[in-house]
Amino acid sequence: MGRLLPKIRPCVVALLLSVPACSPAPRPPAAPPHRLTQVSVIDALMVGRYDGVMPIGELLRHGDFGLGTLDHLDGELIVLDGKAYQVRGDGVVEDVPAGRSTPFAAVTTFAADGERDCPKADRLEELEARLNEALPQKNHFVAVRIDGRFDSLTMRSVPRQEPPYRPLDEVAKGQSVWTKADQEGTLVGLRSPAWAGGLNVPGYHWHFLSRDRRTGGHVLDCKVRDGRVRHDVCGEWSVLLEPAGAFDEADLVKDRSKELHRVESSRGDGKD
Amino acid sequence: MGRLLPKIRPCVVALLLSVPACSPAPRPPAAPPHRLTQVSVIDALMVGRYDGVMPIGELLRHGDFGLGTLDHLDGELIVLDGKAYQVRGDGVVEDVPAGRSTPFAAVTTFAADGERDCPKADRLEELEARLNEALPQKNHFVAVRIDGRFDSLTMRSVPRQEPPYRPLDEVAKGQSVWTKADQEGTLVGLRSPAWAGGLNVPGYHWHFLSRDRRTGGHVLDCKVRDGRVRHDVCGEWSVLLEPAGAFDEADLVKDRSKELHRVESSRGDGKD
Repeated sequence: MGRLLPKIRPCVVALLLSVPACSPAPRPPAAPPHRLTQVSVIDALMVGRYDGVMPIGELLRHGDFGLGTLDHLDGELIVLDGKAYQVRGDGVVEDVPAGRSTPFAAVTTFAADGERDCPKADRLEELEARLNEALPQKNHFVAVRIDGRFDSLTMRSVPRQEPPYRPLDEVAKGQSVWTKADQEGTLVGLRSPAWAGGLNVPGYHWHFLSRDRRTGGHVLDCKVRDGRVRHDVCGEWSVLLEPAGAFDEADLVKDRSKELHRVESSRGDGKD
Repeated sequence: MGRLLPKIRPCVVALLLSVPACSPAPRPPAAPPHRLTQVSVIDALMVGRYDGVMPIGELLRHGDFGLGTLDHLDGELIVLDGKAYQVRGDGVVEDVPAGRSTPFAAVTTFAADGERDCPKADRLEELEARLNEALPQKNHFVAVRIDGRFDSLTMRSVPRQEPPYRPLDEVAKGQSVWTKADQEGTLVGLRSPAWAGGLNVPGYHWHFLSRDRRTGGHVLDCKVRDGRVRHDVCGEWSVLLEPAGAFDEADLVKDRSKELHRVESSRGDGKD
C-alpha cells in the first residue's frame, strides 16, 4: 500500500502565512500520483444525468490526464498534459472554456510506472490483448498513454443534449462516427478493473487527440503503426458523488453492462 | 458536488515555514469531512486476503470513526473518537497496539450532518427501516453513530486466522456469538449504497462498543431502548488498493453477495 501523504488544508496554510483569505491562493500542487479520481459513476450517465457537477478547473486539480464528457453530454472530454479538450459532436477539437463542467470524468496525475514500444496492431482489440499481456494488474485502475502513429482511427463523438435528458444508449444511436487515415497523436486510455463495472467502464476506454490538437474523439477502432506506451498503475481510487438529492433517486443497481458495452464500443448506425 | 478543498503537501508547508524537513511534523489535521476512505474491497476479504495492508496509525489519519477487521482477521475493528479498538474472538475489547494493521476497514472524519432521537426498536431490522425513512440518501455512503441504551445486543466476533487463509464464509462458521442485556454504548454504523455491492457491505454494517469500552462486537441484532442518532453523508469515496501483485490474482468479479449476506447477518451455528 503506497503511503499517502497527509494533507494540510489551504486555509490552514493561509493562516500560518498570515495571508488574508481573499488573496489569490498559489496554485496547489497536483493530487498524489497513483490516485485516480472520478466524478460520479458511469451508471449515473447511463440513466441520463448529464448536468455538470464539477467545474473543469476543479477537475484539473485532481489530475492532468484522463477522459470523460462535458455538461449536457456535449462531446468527448480529453485531459492531456494538464489541459482540457472537447471533441465536439462534429469532430472538431476545442479548448474547454473555463465556465464548463463535467457530469462524468476520470483523471489522474500521470506518472509513468513503466514504458515500452507500442506493438503494431491492425485492430483495437489486438492492441488491447497485447497490452493485457504487458500489464497484468487486472484488479487495479491503469492509465495508459500511447503517443504514436496510426494508419487509421475510427472515432465518434456525441451531440450536445438538452433536458429532459434521454438515457445514454438512446443518445448514442445519434452519435457521429468517422475514420481518419494516417494520424499522429496520443491515445488517452484508462483500463478499469472488471470489479468496477457499473461505476466506471470496465476494460479499456480510449480517447484520441491528434498531435496538432485539431482532431480526436472516442476511439472505436484503430490500426497502430508504431508508438510508445506509458502506463500508470493507480492504487487509490476516489469517487466524488453529486450532492444528496436527485442523485439518490437514480436507479444505480440495475445491471446496465450490456447497454454500456453497446454505447462504448458500437459504431451505432454507422453514419459518418 | 461539494467543492473539495485543494490539498497542500506537508513538505510544501514545511518549506514555506522554513522548518527543517527533519523536525517532528505537527500532527496533520484530519482528512476532509465527508470523505469515506476504505482499505481494499470487501470481496478481497471474502476470498481470504486477511494480511494487513495498512498500519492502524495510517488508517487513523483517514478518519476518526469507522469499522473493519485486523490483520489475520483477528476480531472486529472499531474506530471511535479517533481511537482504534479490537473486539477479540472471545468478545474482550482491547486497545489496538501500534504495530497492528488492517486488511479491510472504512473510516471517515465524523462531522454530523444531522441528529435526532433514536427510535425505540425491538429488532435491528426495525431500527434500520426507521433509519431508512429518516435518511433518504440511498446512493451515498452514510456514517451513522448511535449513542444509546439497549435492552439487549447480540454480537459476534471472529477468531484470528493463520495462513493458508480460508474464505470468509467458511471462517464465519466458527464465529463466537453472544447476547448481552442492558447495555449502554455506541453503535458505529456505515450504510453503503447498493451500487457498492462487492466493494463494501451494501446496506447497514454495525459494530457496538460499550460505554466503558470493555465489550463490543459485530452486531447481529439488538433491542434499542433509547438514544441519539447522528449521521454524516459522505459524498467522496476513496478506495485504497493493495499493491499490484497477488491482489491482481484474486477473482473479484464473481458475485459473492449471498455469501457476504450470510457472513454479515447470520448467527452461524449459534454457539456462544
